[in-house]
Amino acid sequence: MSATRPTRVRGPYAKSAQRRQEILEAATTVFAASGYRGGSLRDIARQLNLSLTSIVHHFGTKYELLEAVLERADQTVGTGFVAFDFEADCVERGVALATMGRVRSNLERPELLRVLAILAAESSAPEHPAHDWFIERYRKKAESLAKGFAYDQQIGRIDGSRDPRMLSRLLIGAWDGVQLQWLIDPSVDMQAAMLAFFEATIPEALDSGP
Amino acid sequence: MSATRPTRVRGPYAKSAQRRQEILEAATTVFAASGYRGGSLRDIARQLNLSLTSIVHHFGTKYELLEAVLERADQTVGTGFVAFDFEADCVERGVALATMGRVRSNLERPELLRVLAILAAESSAPEHPAHDWFIERYRKKAESLAKGFAYDQQIGRIDGSRDPRMLSRLLIGAWDGVQLQWLIDPSVDMQAAMLAFFEATIPEALDSGP
Repeated sequence: MSATRPTRVRGPYAKSAQRRQEILEAATTVFAASGYRGGSLRDIARQLNLSLTSIVHHFGTKYELLEAVLERADQTVGTGFVAFDFEADCVERGVALATMGRVRSNLERPELLRVLAILAAESSAPEHPAHDWFIERYRKKAESLAKGFAYDQQIGRIDGSRDPRMLSRLLIGAWDGVQLQWLIDPSVDMQAAMLAFFEATIPEALDSGP
Repeated sequence: MSATRPTRVRGPYAKSAQRRQEILEAATTVFAASGYRGGSLRDIARQLNLSLTSIVHHFGTKYELLEAVLERADQTVGTGFVAFDFEADCVERGVALATMGRVRSNLERPELLRVLAILAAESSAPEHPAHDWFIERYRKKAESLAKGFAYDQQIGRIDGSRDPRMLSRLLIGAWDGVQLQWLIDPSVDMQAAMLAFFEATIPEALDSGP
């Protein structure tokens, strides 16, 4: 039995999954450089020496490809609703330390952060195809982090006097904004800036050390 | 004498200045929707029913037009180094209250904020033509706000224990990030979030009321 397994894993399904992955990566590179409107399926196909038909075969429309790029980027570098390990880390260590962990690991993924930053800005126009995806993303993120802060307050990890929803909005804002400064100018110390954010807002959250 | 003045104001120079202004506005709209790479001079010309040659006549290259769009947007909605009234307001009322004033007036200028947000994200790739412009913009902005906070500390408007440069980085980050949330979802209360930022970091700065 076990001798047949590698053949099956390398069969047509695995090949197709690998091709999907390659297309996703090329699409991320293209959208990170030129945005959604500026990046074409043709550019993506060209990067991989594939035909346009092959891209369409794997992803249907340009928008479906965009959504797959966004989901993948968000699951890898994001917080909360899709990244289960982040939520678990919030319960374990609190939102502040979990965030500092994610900030650190994201230092190695500037391209995924860039594609989210550029598409978020582009999608802010109501007629943009990803507009609803981003509204939903930010609402869920805000909700999930607010729950995390509420839990931190409940178990006495942080002071209970602040509004968890406002803390959540502020954290998302500072995080996005500081990250943008770092993406533009890597000499900006993103970790120090995020630590400073927590020191200024909920210093007690860092008591057990970042 | 005075009878001839209107003719002179409406002469070729004024006409040319008006045309430049129209091109700048159309370019802002196009870049705000599609970014720099995705927006073409042809799109801009089409919006105004102008020839490509006419755009080139007024602005030379696409990059020169981009720079003019960025300078105009930054002078209108930005802080510090180009917007003299903002700096004067910082001296007069302190960085926090001056920022709250700018946040309020920017509520009416989502398109200028959007063009800066999308171009900042796009330009974070080192090979982007506006990369250096944005590095410089953020450095000057950080410097100018740090000076403002240092002055606030010097005259006792805010507590002297925090590093003014870190406060400045955090303010720029929170401001950009909260603004992005508002651009995507106007139900986010940008003013309340920025007030919460100051309340969390330097509450004493709001003592004289926002």
